[in-house]
Amino acid sequence: MEAANERPERPGKRRRVSSSVVDMQSAIAQPGSIKINVTGAYIIDHDYDGDGSSSGSSPSHDADEHEQTHQHHKRDIRLPNHTSVVSHVAADIGGSLAKVVYFSRENGDAASGGRLHFLSFETEKIDDCIEYLRWLQSKHKATNGPNETNGINGTMKPEPKLSVFATGGGAYKFYDLIKSRLGVDLSREDEMECLIRGLDFFITEIPDEVFTYHDEDQENVMHYQSARSDVYPYLLVNIGSGVSMVKVEGPSKYQRIGGTSLGGGTLWGILSLLTGVTSFDNMLALADKGDNSAVDLLVGDIYGEGTGYEKIGLSERTIASSFGKVLKRKREAERTAEDGGTWVNKGGYGKKPPVPETNGSINGDTTMPAATITGDSGRMFKPEDISRSLLYAISNNIGQIAYLQSEKHNLQRIYFGGSFIRGHQQTIHTLSYAIKFWSKGSKQAFFLRHEGYLGAVGAFLRRRPEGWGRRGSVVEEEAVK
Amino acid sequence: MEAANERPERPGKRRRVSSSVVDMQSAIAQPGSIKINVTGAYIIDHDYDGDGSSSGSSPSHDADEHEQTHQHHKRDIRLPNHTSVVSHVAADIGGSLAKVVYFSRENGDAASGGRLHFLSFETEKIDDCIEYLRWLQSKHKATNGPNETNGINGTMKPEPKLSVFATGGGAYKFYDLIKSRLGVDLSREDEMECLIRGLDFFITEIPDEVFTYHDEDQENVMHYQSARSDVYPYLLVNIGSGVSMVKVEGPSKYQRIGGTSLGGGTLWGILSLLTGVTSFDNMLALADKGDNSAVDLLVGDIYGEGTGYEKIGLSERTIASSFGKVLKRKREAERTAEDGGTWVNKGGYGKKPPVPETNGSINGDTTMPAATITGDSGRMFKPEDISRSLLYAISNNIGQIAYLQSEKHNLQRIYFGGSFIRGHQQTIHTLSYAIKFWSKGSKQAFFLRHEGYLGAVGAFLRRRPEGWGRRGSVVEEEAVK
Repeated sequence: MEAANERPERPGKRRRVSSSVVDMQSAIAQPGSIKINVTGAYIIDHDYDGDGSSSGSSPSHDADEHEQTHQHHKRDIRLPNHTSVVSHVAADIGGSLAKVVYFSRENGDAASGGRLHFLSFETEKIDDCIEYLRWLQSKHKATNGPNETNGINGTMKPEPKLSVFATGGGAYKFYDLIKSRLGVDLSREDEMECLIRGLDFFITEIPDEVFTYHDEDQENVMHYQSARSDVYPYLLVNIGSGVSMVKVEGPSKYQRIGGTSLGGGTLWGILSLLTGVTSFDNMLALADKGDNSAVDLLVGDIYGEGTGYEKIGLSERTIASSFGKVLKRKREAERTAEDGGTWVNKGGYGKKPPVPETNGSINGDTTMPAATITGDSGRMFKPEDISRSLLYAISNNIGQIAYLQSEKHNLQRIYFGGSFIRGHQQTIHTLSYAIKFWSKGSKQAFFLRHEGYLGAVGAFLRRRPEGWGRRGSVVEEEAVK
Repeated sequence: MEAANERPERPGKRRRVSSSVVDMQSAIAQPGSIKINVTGAYIIDHDYDGDGSSSGSSPSHDADEHEQTHQHHKRDIRLPNHTSVVSHVAADIGGSLAKVVYFSRENGDAASGGRLHFLSFETEKIDDCIEYLRWLQSKHKATNGPNETNGINGTMKPEPKLSVFATGGGAYKFYDLIKSRLGVDLSREDEMECLIRGLDFFITEIPDEVFTYHDEDQENVMHYQSARSDVYPYLLVNIGSGVSMVKVEGPSKYQRIGGTSLGGGTLWGILSLLTGVTSFDNMLALADKGDNSAVDLLVGDIYGEGTGYEKIGLSERTIASSFGKVLKRKREAERTAEDGGTWVNKGGYGKKPPVPETNGSINGDTTMPAATITGDSGRMFKPEDISRSLLYAISNNIGQIAYLQSEKHNLQRIYFGGSFIRGHQQTIHTLSYAIKFWSKGSKQAFFLRHEGYLGAVGAFLRRRPEGWGRRGSVVEEEAVK
């Protein structure tokens, strides 16, 4: 299925300069109209400290601030054959994160092509995102301005402006704000269309972008996939603050078939309340250290040492109820507290229940939650255990719904994208396991190394790129239309 | 579809005494072997204060305790035609609740038949549950003991013992405990079998037990159903601590097809942590007063005043992300706190973001969650809003998975049972709406007035009851076997 001879050539080889004069003129006259040449694109770790620019540092470096307001994705996409001027950037502004994709020329040398950069801001810090775009604008002007000497045919170039293609809900919400700050037209791109175009780009053009997860192969849990186009139909599960599920039958034939409100926003929201941690990555780090059986009710907890659960296809470690142990332990602690730390066995018989880790300062049934989670010095539930339990619950649930939707719509391949995943192994493992478990191994979960940037890269590649469709995907698109 | 002439006769009429001498002897010699006569069964509000006994009060009335450890369901089932001695009780011991069903003779008069009582204990208070069973034992002995005069044919009766039919995980976990305390054999009944037998009993024998929910009919939101047997195949969604979904094709043909760990235990566990409330009913009362839009990210919040979401079939009020507003508001509060209560507009431009309800005492990124939910005097998120959001999230999610499973298995009718529901209107509304929404009105959600007692009543009716199957369900059962 995966034709190795279709893999694009690897870095090191210098390609011919394929930019056309027409494209370049067009790019200047009509910002964003240029076709990006994606021939031979590949993933590369970015080899610079910061934003990858050789001319000036990014705004967050200029500013005297301790806090970096954006996060650069650690892998760029090299476009060795794109040599013409790119006069646009793209932003996908979601409920929690704003993702930005922009192009930079490699070493300032048109013949070397360039690369795509990927970075994200919290949507609540949209001002920082806009400031970053302004900085890209000024850089673009400096590089391609009227004073620059490499004009075409010696004609005077018009004032170069970096236009912005925006998608996601924020393209509507912040439309006026972005337009007025940047002084450019903001082109709003359809969210679903961008998502699919971006995913198709990654699947069909970028080798080693897509991977499957194999827990059984501990030496090499991620199996990278060649670029390929024989993937339709498939299910896209895009997990951001919420979850969207899209049935994709071809490059331009797709339909939102469902979703769930239990997504990244739910995990981040509840964990920020329960653990106090407010950074996504710190939450995931906590989850890595946790043991969910301290808060989850397992099948073994209900049935005890006896048997019975095998009959209905459950194992002792199966989670019967996420957070199902919490209320019981809280109530035990309350009674312990009420009784002055001594368990009063009212019936005069029976085992003394285990006393939870608490110093007896647990509140009663009030609406002040503070001391119910942590005592003055002890802690009843560990943030690590809570984090792992909720990460399991949300990921499992998405996996199950994805499987059921794939059944209903008869789809074999399930691609998981979105900023929730963040390359986190536990999350990928859980999603992958859920698909395997529910489908009894008949369906496959696919992941992406740029999983959070599907919409942004789709907005960036607004015009069908040059070199795309070599593997037949665009032909199919035409047929579908 | 609902044949009114099949409804059993209503209360007020005295039935003939249909008990047989053989059954009565058998009941005494082999406890629990008796067939319960369910002919003419109907729902009745219990007309007593306490446990419904005319001979002695329940243990919790004897004891000098402020806390009632069990909860009596407010509706009994009258069995006007069951006149013989019943020498067993049934208990369904789940992860959170232990449900008990027992029979009492009406006014001590065999000719009047009797009634089934329904009550529940928290599983963690299993000792109280066992004590209650001991009290039922002693009552049974007092009523049917050797000194009693209504012996059969003047022969001496053996020592009357009340046997226990138990199901649920606790039937395994507490097997030895219950057996040794009560001094009787404990008969363990298959959990799934009891669940289905109980549900079939309610559907086919009890008029007005099953209902559908109709939000559009504000005068009469609950539409009660006649007893009927033409219901196969159907999906049972049993929501306790966790959720089990069972495909039922006939009285003895069923299969567990799935479930989710996001159930009652998840709601109760997370809410006990976030609100401090530890009673189920208080949590539901909170949810009734809440506004989920304070914590949930709605589609309108992402897209702003603009448009775009209609295109993908979403409305402004659709929940995009449950708890999706929490992290954003927490971070805003943190920044406000760091800045000494003043928002520092770093970029020198932009709208000042709304300052959340807080007095600025919010902690930073620590693992001590206490003050992150409530400040010293202010509160950032209301327990009411949190409760409503989570109730929506859990109920919606169960509804969606139930719909998808019903699609996969081609089932039109979906019955919701289990202790999670508790007759709570908001929960029933949400589950009902989810089925309507996802199935575009083509599928129907059904609820039960004794929704928490399916397994317990199924264990109680261990032998096929007399009078059951008048409507053809047992014939079908035989055919299936």
